[in-house]
Amino acid sequence: MNWKDNVRRVTPYVPGEQPKDKNIIKLNTNENPYPPCPGAEKVLNGFDADSLKKYPDPNVTMLRQALADYHGVSFSQVFVGVGSDDVLGTAFLTLFGGDKPVLFPDLTYSFYPVWAELYRIPFREIPLDESFHIRPDDYRIPSGGVIFPNPNAPTGIYENKENVRKILDQNRDVAVIVDEAYIDFAGEDASVLSLLPEYDNLLIVRTFSKSRSLAGARIAYAIGSEEMIDCMLAIRNSYNSYTMNSVSIAAGTASVEDDAYFRNTVKKICDTRERFTREAEKLGFTILPSSTNFVFAMPPEKCPAAELFRMAREKGIYFRYFSAKRAEPYLRITIGTDEEMDLVLAFFREVYQN
Amino acid sequence: MNWKDNVRRVTPYVPGEQPKDKNIIKLNTNENPYPPCPGAEKVLNGFDADSLKKYPDPNVTMLRQALADYHGVSFSQVFVGVGSDDVLGTAFLTLFGGDKPVLFPDLTYSFYPVWAELYRIPFREIPLDESFHIRPDDYRIPSGGVIFPNPNAPTGIYENKENVRKILDQNRDVAVIVDEAYIDFAGEDASVLSLLPEYDNLLIVRTFSKSRSLAGARIAYAIGSEEMIDCMLAIRNSYNSYTMNSVSIAAGTASVEDDAYFRNTVKKICDTRERFTREAEKLGFTILPSSTNFVFAMPPEKCPAAELFRMAREKGIYFRYFSAKRAEPYLRITIGTDEEMDLVLAFFREVYQN
Repeated sequence: MNWKDNVRRVTPYVPGEQPKDKNIIKLNTNENPYPPCPGAEKVLNGFDADSLKKYPDPNVTMLRQALADYHGVSFSQVFVGVGSDDVLGTAFLTLFGGDKPVLFPDLTYSFYPVWAELYRIPFREIPLDESFHIRPDDYRIPSGGVIFPNPNAPTGIYENKENVRKILDQNRDVAVIVDEAYIDFAGEDASVLSLLPEYDNLLIVRTFSKSRSLAGARIAYAIGSEEMIDCMLAIRNSYNSYTMNSVSIAAGTASVEDDAYFRNTVKKICDTRERFTREAEKLGFTILPSSTNFVFAMPPEKCPAAELFRMAREKGIYFRYFSAKRAEPYLRITIGTDEEMDLVLAFFREVYQN
Repeated sequence: MNWKDNVRRVTPYVPGEQPKDKNIIKLNTNENPYPPCPGAEKVLNGFDADSLKKYPDPNVTMLRQALADYHGVSFSQVFVGVGSDDVLGTAFLTLFGGDKPVLFPDLTYSFYPVWAELYRIPFREIPLDESFHIRPDDYRIPSGGVIFPNPNAPTGIYENKENVRKILDQNRDVAVIVDEAYIDFAGEDASVLSLLPEYDNLLIVRTFSKSRSLAGARIAYAIGSEEMIDCMLAIRNSYNSYTMNSVSIAAGTASVEDDAYFRNTVKKICDTRERFTREAEKLGFTILPSSTNFVFAMPPEKCPAAELFRMAREKGIYFRYFSAKRAEPYLRITIGTDEEMDLVLAFFREVYQN
């Protein structure tokens, strides 16, 4: 007998690289190329350091209220956490405690099976159709819950509200989590927030790491029925009462309050995405229709994904490559500034036009 | 069947109140009355807000290296987390995966049974002796692991290294976690860090929330054998790859680098503790010998703990009161500034000398 015999073993998620060299064109972890809003900067640099001697507000009142006002829901319908991995992990632990398998797509965010394994939750991966869409009818089976990102990652593909509604209607008896990390890039009224009043089993998860340029501050949130949020808070308070630090609470609140900056940044990224897509298609790339701040792009045969990934890396351009079966012909390319994407296109031309 | 049937239910930990009124003398959550070191303030207010658009360093290299250097251990022996609840919770999840009960004292930090319940870990609480000390011989039984704070909370009592060594020797086959949240207030060489090279099953947990005045930044860490830290990192990376935000990484590093400020603050608090203890004893209080930044104090019969707690609260003085069996005659009183403790003593004189 040895202490190691009691250790819980898992296959950990492997996050994208975080190189420290600032000259790298970093398009591998779907960060926003624009800085956080000026209000967040002001809050940060004017923050009263003395106040850090006290614990943060365990109820995160300021930020939750700002989010509730922004989305037109009540304070007690909002849960916040340290990045969407924290919020989603807590949701898994809280809501997926049944014996039946939890359902999610294959391909999707690769953290889902990791949490399931970690918390010993049975799961079943359901293949996407040939165009990488979710088939709602596939989710018409007894389950312990359902989770999927919308738009999906790493494909970038958006499912319309009627399809999400179908999945909800077929799963009234279990929790359904819609992971809307990228929804702000999917256009007006793309979110299923409007369905919340009809479904007390629906949880919507959002993050400040993409559209709000605050990946470094670790902020995300969930919106659901008061009863569902209550259950999540009970679990959260059972592992850590003070997860959100005081500086992030203040900076996050400032971000929610500056809607014009936020909308402008999102629009710039969507415009760049459309332009980049057109140009890359001209070079022979096949690009899935993206509703996110990245594209899932299949390079021309001349230099396929794995090879292009390595060549780009040598040039200081970082993409994300997944060796999973159906993902393997593609690269996931984050949308940076116009200047960055022009450099990427110039590199592509070098590879494919010579 | 309803989604609520799948919800994991727990009895959550109830943290101390966090009143927002700044006039309150807040001695209920063992915060430090002094501000963080000037270097931490400088880092915070000079922080490059633009950089928040990127994810933090998932390896928290800067802070882990500073801690490794500070304690004379290797980088790969250091684990950091979002407050000691995060570190301890991760340790429970990682190291206490066996079938036999995990052992911890009764009285102790009330989060231990909550994590055990949350992660479905069997546990057994072992009563402290009549002077609130741990009896090492009580831990000479088959178990799935051992955890205790040293000094203990809420008693403030310190166990000497020989007693900790006895517990370690009797439990070579399981993980033993020593929660040293308050060790900096226990004097030089009080830590069992010096025992680390002998025990690869020992994990030592520390926090920035007490002695380093950074409760609001949410920083804690663990030191153990490289193999043990590896196991914890695998679990950590399975629920959240980016827990420590960029600002806290920088501010925490600055704190580790300013040892003079740190030592001075700790000394001031210990001096105030000794003076407060003497004065309160003159008024008839029974105070357990404290090696922490709080005292566990039994008020005179004339106005017992529960009543004094309520009276103080009305005056804007917050203590912590635990209604658990053996804790019930005591109040836990955080050591504030000299000025704050003088106001507390003046209030005590009003109550007990009239």
